[in-house]
Amino acid sequence: MPELSRVTSEAHEAMSIRYNTMVYELQQRGIKVLIMSLGEAYFDIPLFPMDDLPYPQVNHYSHSRGLPELREKLAQYFRTEYGVVFDPATEIIITAGSKAAIHMTLMSVLNPGDEVLYSEPAWVSYPEQIKLCYAIPVGIPYDRSVYDYESYITPRTKAIIINNPHNPRGSVLSGPELQDLLDLARQYDLWLLSDEAYSDFLIDDSFVSVARLDPEKKNSAVFNSMSKNYGISGWRIGYVISNGALINNVLKVNQHLVTCPATILESYLAKHFGELLEITKPQMRDVVCRRRQLAAYMDEIGLNYLPGTATFYFFVSIAPSRLSSEGFCTRLLQEDYVSIVPGIGYGHSCGRFVRVSVGAATLEENKFGLDRIRDLIRKTS
Amino acid sequence: MPELSRVTSEAHEAMSIRYNTMVYELQQRGIKVLIMSLGEAYFDIPLFPMDDLPYPQVNHYSHSRGLPELREKLAQYFRTEYGVVFDPATEIIITAGSKAAIHMTLMSVLNPGDEVLYSEPAWVSYPEQIKLCYAIPVGIPYDRSVYDYESYITPRTKAIIINNPHNPRGSVLSGPELQDLLDLARQYDLWLLSDEAYSDFLIDDSFVSVARLDPEKKNSAVFNSMSKNYGISGWRIGYVISNGALINNVLKVNQHLVTCPATILESYLAKHFGELLEITKPQMRDVVCRRRQLAAYMDEIGLNYLPGTATFYFFVSIAPSRLSSEGFCTRLLQEDYVSIVPGIGYGHSCGRFVRVSVGAATLEENKFGLDRIRDLIRKTS
Repeated sequence: MPELSRVTSEAHEAMSIRYNTMVYELQQRGIKVLIMSLGEAYFDIPLFPMDDLPYPQVNHYSHSRGLPELREKLAQYFRTEYGVVFDPATEIIITAGSKAAIHMTLMSVLNPGDEVLYSEPAWVSYPEQIKLCYAIPVGIPYDRSVYDYESYITPRTKAIIINNPHNPRGSVLSGPELQDLLDLARQYDLWLLSDEAYSDFLIDDSFVSVARLDPEKKNSAVFNSMSKNYGISGWRIGYVISNGALINNVLKVNQHLVTCPATILESYLAKHFGELLEITKPQMRDVVCRRRQLAAYMDEIGLNYLPGTATFYFFVSIAPSRLSSEGFCTRLLQEDYVSIVPGIGYGHSCGRFVRVSVGAATLEENKFGLDRIRDLIRKTS
Repeated sequence: MPELSRVTSEAHEAMSIRYNTMVYELQQRGIKVLIMSLGEAYFDIPLFPMDDLPYPQVNHYSHSRGLPELREKLAQYFRTEYGVVFDPATEIIITAGSKAAIHMTLMSVLNPGDEVLYSEPAWVSYPEQIKLCYAIPVGIPYDRSVYDYESYITPRTKAIIINNPHNPRGSVLSGPELQDLLDLARQYDLWLLSDEAYSDFLIDDSFVSVARLDPEKKNSAVFNSMSKNYGISGWRIGYVISNGALINNVLKVNQHLVTCPATILESYLAKHFGELLEITKPQMRDVVCRRRQLAAYMDEIGLNYLPGTATFYFFVSIAPSRLSSEGFCTRLLQEDYVSIVPGIGYGHSCGRFVRVSVGAATLEENKFGLDRIRDLIRKTS
């Protein structure tokens, strides 16, 4: 067999996907697993008929920037919801999930050897996507604040990725913190890439989109996902918003990598945009409320976690345990059939943590899972 | 604004997409355009209801190798249809279109600076995808045969991409030609990457999949597309078949770039796999028959084209015209509202050709379009 490429041979499998695949394989054997490892919340949403969508157009390619009607809806939504104005004709591309949007944007701003800063714990794909661009991921340890970022900037730094609200911390960056990061980006001529996939998973108004602070989007790009907000992770509909020049380069990458997301699903979402949001918004609030109740429960049973108020994730400390985060999660899955994700998948500084997602199970089930985590910490301390 | 990356700033927009966007914009102004530029055939197919699909599973991520049921169906299909055996658990990944499959496979085999051979006219994305891997595209002029490829091999050559059946030639590589290419790949330790997206657009049994000649798939990978064969280009469902080691690297890229194609569409296709094929197979034959009739018509009106018997494309010579292929296509679109694609988009050796797709219009409409091409050649000779 001829050799495989170095960059993909050295790439790491997404840790969350690895554990979810293990879950999947247990389930295939008929075992019931308590799933606290998924990057999605489960919503109760209807599936509207598709036979009233424009047919046969929905079978064919859509505009490679995305279906115009859907871009319009998103522009309206951003204006009213986040106070962000963008031109749907030139400043957005709808992509096959926000993962693809982030990758294609990184391709569009990075030259080989460039450095990209991001905070740990970091979503598993950031460092891998950066490496697939032949650039260098620079993870900032979990105990530093955004005010420490400047000390990580070198002449090779080209971009900062932030995840706001944050998976898996559940934290939200404040307006002044964001302004500070944007000032830093302007001062050092960097791209501030803001992954805002969880922007609707809040129960207060603390969220500010970076695009609001940088109205011309000269230094910023914003990623978001309909997959997350509508509880349809498997439909793979995300997008990137930025200035026309950056979007134009992303467009070229998109044309050669994917062409467009599934037209029929774009069309469905354009048609049912408002309806679906009305259905999912209260459920998003419920998930965040559940998160708050579970935070209180962890305080009660003595589990520690990084502070946060948004999303449906916790980054929980297993510090007293002698097990590595991988050993911990594998044992919890195999002995207790509770599935969570090792912290080490989120950065070198995170080996004493695990990621717990409370979006897919009930309050009681999640409490049961948290009890098992506490028990395993105790057993292995 | 911080700089954009060199690789994407230098990338070319897909020529076919550029012209189809121009068409789209004319249509938005209410102008009726005869479309002979699309990379898809239009089929008359039903849209089955989706409310009997497993719900809510269809909303969520599927296995990052693709829905197991769909992989099984594809394995059966390849066994019976092409005499190709592969393990659906380890030797296939279903992707968001075959474009993504090709890109992720190139990422998985190429190191920066590697050279990749392919024949011109070449599908517009091959050279761009190669460059996005920081590798070097080596287009072989349209008038060379596969027996000339060896002279293009250097110590840096890592792969050969073939498109069989060929877009836009419409030609099919014979068994001996394929065997020769495979022997070459084995001798020089190269990957033979075979894009077989048009494998069902034939009316004889001349098509041989490379995977049949390389049963262990040690030197080969095969790409194919349900989007093309089912007339649902906009659904973005493709796949790559190869040995487990290569597939494993592609899997890692897929996990960080897209996760999975739209689960609901995979589920639909798994459920209606046989039915849809029964509906589209005769229509695929019809399209190829129409192509044959139009070949005869071109002989009659004195248009020249590269020889071929498959697909729904022609690569037509405009040699007597003084116009460049871009000038020719732009004028045909603006004056006659007939949309075709400039040959130059398919390689440096192809500036005296245009690509004509006969999959989306009727026989008579296509004849009308070919007449306009002949007229414009005459007018500009």
